[in-house]
This record gives sequence, structure tokens and C-alpha cells, in this order.
Amino acid sequence: MTTEVEDNTLRLRRAQSVTKAEEITEKENKARKLQYDKPCHKPRDSLFSWSSDFANFTGLVNWGFLMLTIGGLRLFLENILKYGIRVNPFEWIIVLTGYNEGNKYQYPSLILLLFSVVPAVTSLIVEKGIAVDIISENVGISLQISNILFVIILPVVVLHFKGPEFSFVGITSVCMIYLVIFLKLWSYTQTNQWCRCANKSRLAKNKLRRQSLSAPNWNKLINAEHEQSFDDDKNDEILAARLVKYPDNLNLKDLFYFLFAPTLCYELNFPRTTRIRKRFLVKRLLEVIFGWNLVLALFQQWMIPSVTNSVDTFSEMDPLKITERLLKLAVPNHLIWLCFFYLSFHSFLNLMGEIMHFADRKFYGDWWNANNISVFWSTWNMPVHMWAVRHVYIPITEKGYSKVVASTVVFFISAFFHEYLVSVPLQMFRIWAFLGMMVQPPLAVISRFAEVKFGHRWGNIMVWSSLILGQPLAIMMYYHDYAVAHFKSV
Amino acid sequence: MTTEVEDNTLRLRRAQSVTKAEEITEKENKARKLQYDKPCHKPRDSLFSWSSDFANFTGLVNWGFLMLTIGGLRLFLENILKYGIRVNPFEWIIVLTGYNEGNKYQYPSLILLLFSVVPAVTSLIVEKGIAVDIISENVGISLQISNILFVIILPVVVLHFKGPEFSFVGITSVCMIYLVIFLKLWSYTQTNQWCRCANKSRLAKNKLRRQSLSAPNWNKLINAEHEQSFDDDKNDEILAARLVKYPDNLNLKDLFYFLFAPTLCYELNFPRTTRIRKRFLVKRLLEVIFGWNLVLALFQQWMIPSVTNSVDTFSEMDPLKITERLLKLAVPNHLIWLCFFYLSFHSFLNLMGEIMHFADRKFYGDWWNANNISVFWSTWNMPVHMWAVRHVYIPITEKGYSKVVASTVVFFISAFFHEYLVSVPLQMFRIWAFLGMMVQPPLAVISRFAEVKFGHRWGNIMVWSSLILGQPLAIMMYYHDYAVAHFKSV
Repeated sequence: MTTEVEDNTLRLRRAQSVTKAEEITEKENKARKLQYDKPCHKPRDSLFSWSSDFANFTGLVNWGFLMLTIGGLRLFLENILKYGIRVNPFEWIIVLTGYNEGNKYQYPSLILLLFSVVPAVTSLIVEKGIAVDIISENVGISLQISNILFVIILPVVVLHFKGPEFSFVGITSVCMIYLVIFLKLWSYTQTNQWCRCANKSRLAKNKLRRQSLSAPNWNKLINAEHEQSFDDDKNDEILAARLVKYPDNLNLKDLFYFLFAPTLCYELNFPRTTRIRKRFLVKRLLEVIFGWNLVLALFQQWMIPSVTNSVDTFSEMDPLKITERLLKLAVPNHLIWLCFFYLSFHSFLNLMGEIMHFADRKFYGDWWNANNISVFWSTWNMPVHMWAVRHVYIPITEKGYSKVVASTVVFFISAFFHEYLVSVPLQMFRIWAFLGMMVQPPLAVISRFAEVKFGHRWGNIMVWSSLILGQPLAIMMYYHDYAVAHFKSV
Repeated sequence: MTTEVEDNTLRLRRAQSVTKAEEITEKENKARKLQYDKPCHKPRDSLFSWSSDFANFTGLVNWGFLMLTIGGLRLFLENILKYGIRVNPFEWIIVLTGYNEGNKYQYPSLILLLFSVVPAVTSLIVEKGIAVDIISENVGISLQISNILFVIILPVVVLHFKGPEFSFVGITSVCMIYLVIFLKLWSYTQTNQWCRCANKSRLAKNKLRRQSLSAPNWNKLINAEHEQSFDDDKNDEILAARLVKYPDNLNLKDLFYFLFAPTLCYELNFPRTTRIRKRFLVKRLLEVIFGWNLVLALFQQWMIPSVTNSVDTFSEMDPLKITERLLKLAVPNHLIWLCFFYLSFHSFLNLMGEIMHFADRKFYGDWWNANNISVFWSTWNMPVHMWAVRHVYIPITEKGYSKVVASTVVFFISAFFHEYLVSVPLQMFRIWAFLGMMVQPPLAVISRFAEVKFGHRWGNIMVWSSLILGQPLAIMMYYHDYAVAHFKSV
């Protein structure tokens, strides 16, 4: 193998010799054409020789598409032939509600979901109490912190005492929704506090102005400057007047709007749409209904048999077999994840947005083009990303800490909640999900290196690889431990 | 579902409402930004919504590439785990020579290959005989036709009497090489005949000129016109003089050059290269050596178990199972075919070309971009395509027949030789390969229709589909019949 420089000089030298050779061959060809043997050959290169400068391989994209389709279709048929049809379209009702033969007509998951209203309303009452000065600032903040901690701890405690009554999917949904409420109430509390602080400092300033009437010109100047942007235009003034201001926002309607709006960041005045697009709404609704059934079908038909078959292999610790199982698991897992992503972040959140007249629909960036893992983490889940930046990263940096500290904190919170979402439903406090998050920063460095060293393409391939292969690895770890703990006879 | 027109009007209407809405929201945003709740939302669409006009999905190409790699790796591991290592690097010696325990030190395939020199030399002797007027034109042509028919029939006859002594790969190689010699000798004979005719007509013209000396000016004029292109330049004259002219070409050296040159079309003066590129030569040589071992390994390890496993399924006639088997077989078969294509048409023919100083390396066109099946057939195998055009298609059209007739004849000859290459080694005169070729014209019409109706992309996908799925279908047909005939206990 020679270096690129050598290759280039060779190419140059060859190109020169080609032009000289071409002159001769052209004349030779002219002479040859006058023969009577009907010549059909002329000097030219094969397309795959680099000297041919041919580079049109667009057909290979179709080839890849077709090979993937054929592979997928084959796997589908193999699966049907091997396992029969395992899809039960009503199972989701059972798994969600936790309804089963043993304990009829108890819906622990549903009860817990309904109960989530309580901490939300509590949060509003405390806010209101602080706003009307019934509760002091410090007591109020302590109450709010206790309240959001209660939200995150409640599922753990309930599951500890009433574990067997819950189905796995039921408790996962509960954990997910309680986590969302936790993040929303955090944002609600913190945003209200910002408004309160701003109001207080304005009141203090006004007081100061009233106290120092001896120097009105200077104060008027500041005041005028501050108010100028409001007074620019009569229209603007009306618009500003129409905006909700603290503490007018502290009411049930506003709170429930925020709880159902597809965002984790509280604002007093969300951007709103003027109308509900009915076609759009119906499309998203159909996607959600049929999509989730598709995901459930893939899960029952493809994922569960693969995972079940793999446990023995993982216990044997044969690296070749483990790799084979892992790759076998990677494909359905990844496809399910892609469906999950689309259904959650496009279909479901847009559906909620449309219903709630919520105008900001940036629920995801173009993470599929991400050239390194940091970019992926900051684009695939925009609500969480926005929340982390607004409520953790910026407040920490504003306190004077460095960006590295802020990033690390964001990162640990994220890792903790990944572990929370897996460990609590499985009732197994392993650290595989946490570790999975912990390898992200080194991976980010490696993928950044790959991007800089080998180009965007390889950075992007690194991102996809970690996504396709990392998840089934974590899943197998958990399932292995779960199977060992629960069915020891296996 | 609405039509595209409706969609467009909707889009237009929405765009107008968006611009009006934008004006308001911009002012609203300005007002919102002055609030103290640090607003972070703004009205925007999700990337997957068509109203977002986002269309950058380049990362998905890497995704496809990665999924294919992972799928391939998984299949490889599964295969190793299921069948163990079945590759025997020395088996190719056995299969090629037909050497086995039963008949030691008999190499029937090698003997047949060496014998192929005899018809080639016979052809030269007959040509020479005609050229020096020992044999009359008509007798000579009859002899030549008998000779090339002998070439194509010989393997069939030998196999009929000595069948069990041959290995399958050995006899396939023999059939392939005898077919190549058949095509080459056809070209050799026909080209020499063209030269002879041209010489005769020139002699006749010269005679005519000599007879009609009374009108020299007119004849001189023609002659001058004819010779002018030669006399344009002194250099050209020298070049023309250097060219071999009939019957000087009728010698052993020229014949053997043609037999080893990577072309099927005979010419008196092939375009030549001035030097052998050693790096290029070594690369191609290594590709041939390692590549063929790879193909053999894939064949032993992947293809044979798949085919063997599929026979029972095909006997059962369960359409679901047959489809699954077919798709399972399609992947290794297609990959082997791709390797075979590259190794034969790029590595091997370029290697021969480099050794023989043969300058025309267009052994294949960019068939991977072919948008319909006709284009595929005229680009994937350029030596045969050139031969068919020069020696069948053009002579027939020159005789006054229509292009359709000429195409049909070319097509039937091609179908016959496909059948020949499969039926003779298998000693089973089924017509699956012939039928496989027979469905190409209707497929060509359909793919042309797909191209015109749905765009190039779908034409190209049709081409790839017929390539990926058609071959394993034909293979299974043959193998099924072969297994039924040979191992009836199965």
C-alpha cells in the first residue's frame, strides 16, 4: 500500500504518458479503421480502474435498499415459520392496566397515573401561597423540593410494596409519566421563582426611585429606556398587555395546559397556533394507533423470542455465540426503537401539540445526520435537551461554574434517569443503563476524533453503530440478570 | 388520500396564512422575550412534517450501509456456528481436475482443455488453405462451420461417454472454455472472410480499371479519393504500412494471441499498450488468487448448505416456505455472483489484458446503474455483447432483415448458450435456464414501463430485483430436479 501522495504523482505521470500515447493511438486508430476487418476495439480503461475516473454508483443505493428489504422480508418469514403468529392485539390493555387473572378489576397503574394530579395541584397551591405571601419564600422552596422528590420516589415505594400487582409495561408507563411530571414541576417551580425574583427587583427599584425623588431626571431616563421597547408601537403595547404576567398565571387552567402541552419547559405565554389542522390531527392519531400496535406486534413476535433464546447463550459466555445473538437482537431492537422514536416524537407529541394549540413543534433535530455522539444527544430528544439547558446547564454556568461542570451535572442527571426508567420497572438495581450512559463521553471523544480524522461519514457511522449495538447489549445484560434472578431453572 | 393538486393548493393556502401568522407571532415573540420567565419556545414545525421543507437524510445512507454490514456479519456467524468450518482450500484442485479416489491420476478436464488447441489450429490451417487457394471458398466455409460445431458438441459427447470421471466444476470450466473458443473461432473465420471479400472486390476493381484504360481519368479520380486518406500525412502512411494486412495475419503467433486476448472479436490489428504496469498486474493477480478462494469458500460454507436444506421444502410446495428459502438463498447467491462478476470481468480479464498488452479494457459497462433490463444485458458482459453485435446483429441487419429479427436471433443464441452452460455439466436437459432467458424480453418491457412511468429509480430497482431473485429461482429448479434424479431417497 502506498500513500496518497505517491498515488497522485503516479496518476500525474500516467496522465502525461496517456496524452502522449493518445496522440499516437488516435492516428493508429484512424489507420486501423480503414482496414477491412471491421475493427471494434479501442484503447480504454475498465470502469473500476481508478485511471478511468468513473464514479457513478447511484444504482448501488437501490441495491442496498433492495438487499435490506429482501433481508427483512426473509427474517419476517423465518420468524412466522419458526414461532407462528404470537401477536395478541388485546394484550396491550392487559399489560397497561395490569389486569390479570390473579387480581381482577384492580388497575394499579391507572390509579397511580390518576394520582399524579395530586403533586401537580400541590405545587400550584404552594406557588400561590408564596405569591400571596402566606408561605415564606424559603419554606415554599423547601415544600416544592419535597413535592418533586415525592413525585420521583412514589413509584419506587409503591412498587416495593405492591410489586406483583403491576405489569412490566404498566409500571414502565407509570415511571415514565412520573418522570415527566417531575421534570415539568421542576420547570414550573423554577420559572415562577425567576418571575418572582424579577418582580421583586423591579419593586425594589421602584421603591428606590420613590425614595430618591431628588434626582428624578436620571431615574426617569432609566425608566424611559426600560419602557421604550414597550412604547415603540401602539400595537406592541396591546400585544404586551395581552401577555399573562406573574402571578396571574397561577391558576388550574394554566397548570393543566402545561401538564398536557408537549414540552418540559414552563413559560407564562407559550406560542400558540390559531387553528387545529384536522387532516394533520387525523394522520397523527392514526399513526399513533396503528404504530403502537405495530411496535407491540414486533415486540411480541420478534423481540421476545430473540431475547428468550439468548439467555442461555449469555450464561455460556462463548464470545462467538454472544456476538451472533447480539447482532441478531440488534436488528429488531433497532427497528423497534426507530418506530418508537417516530411514534413518540413525531406522531404523539405533534398530536398533543395540535390539540393544545402548541406552536413549537421542534421535538427532535436531524440526529440521523449527527457526526458525533454529542450532537446526537443534543438533537434526538429536544424537550429533554431544552429542559436540561434551561434548568440545569444555564443556571449552573450563571452561578459562575465552568461549562465542563455544568455538562457533567446534566450528564449525571440524564444517566440517573435512564437507570431509573429501567431499574424501577425491573425491580433490579443493576447499573447497566447507568454504565451505558457513562460510556457516552468517551464515545463522544472517539466519534469526534473519527469525524476530524476520517471525515463526517465515519463520525456518523460511529453514532449509528453505538445506537444499533449499544442498546441490545444493555438489554441483554438486564434480561440475563432478570432471567437468572426469576427463573433459576432455565 | 387526496391528489397532489389538492395538496398543493392546501400548501399554498397554508403558506399564505403562515406569512400572516408569522407577522403577528414575530411581534408577539418580541413582547414575550421581554418577560421574566426566560421563554425558550418559538413557533416551528417538526422536521418530518412536510411543511418544514426539510430533506437532508444523508445519514440514512450510512445507516443502510451499517445495517447491511451487521446483517452480513450475523449471517456469517450463524453459518459458522451451525455448520462449522466447511472450507477446504484444496478442494478446488480436486474439483477442477476431476481427481478423486476412484480414478487416480486421470485428469479428464485438463486433457479436454489441452485438446482445445486442435480445433483452433485446424481453423487456422483451413483459413490458410483458402487464402492460398488450395481449398475453394465454399468447401473452406463448410469445413470451418463443421469445425466450430465440433467445438461446441465435443464436451457433450465426451461427457455422455465418460460422465462419471468428471467433476461438476471441471466440466463446467470445460464447457465455458469450449464455448469461448467456439465464439472466438466464429469471429476468426468471419473476420477473415470479410477481409477476403474486400480484397477480392478490390482486385476485381483493379482488374476493371486495367480493362477500361480508355477512361483513366474517372478511375484515377476514384482511386485518388480512396487513397487520399492514406496520403494525408507521411506519418499516417507509415502507421498504415505498419498494420498487418490479410493474409499476413494467418499464422500461429497471431492465432494464439487472439485465443489468449480478453476479447471474442477477432481483429488483424488489436490496439496495444506500450508497457506492462507491474503494480496493476500484481494487484489483479492477487485479486484473482484470493478472490476465487473467497468465492469457493462462500460456495462451500454458505451456498451448498442452503441449497441442500431447501430441496425438501421445494418438494413440499408450501409457498410460504419456498419464498423463505428462496430469499435465504438469494443473499449468498447474489454476493457470490457479484464476486464472480468482479473477479472475472475486472480482475481476470484485466490481468490477461495487461499480460497480452491488450489496450481495450471495456469488459463491462455501468450495468449497476441500468434503468431497464435491456441496458443491463448490453452492458454487464461487453465481450459477448460486442461479439453478438458485430457477428450476429449487424450481419443480419446488413442482409436487409429488420432490427427486431436481428435482436431475436441474438437473444435465442444467448438463451441457448445459457442453457448449454448449465444443462451439459448437470447432464440434465431441463429448460429452466432457457426459460429464465425467455422471460427477459417481457421483463425488459415491464422494466422499461416502470422506468417511464415511475422514474429511473424504479427501473433500476426492477433490474436489481430480477438479478437478485431470478438466479436463485433457476438454481433451485435445477437443484431440485438434480436431487430428485440422483438421491431419490431424499
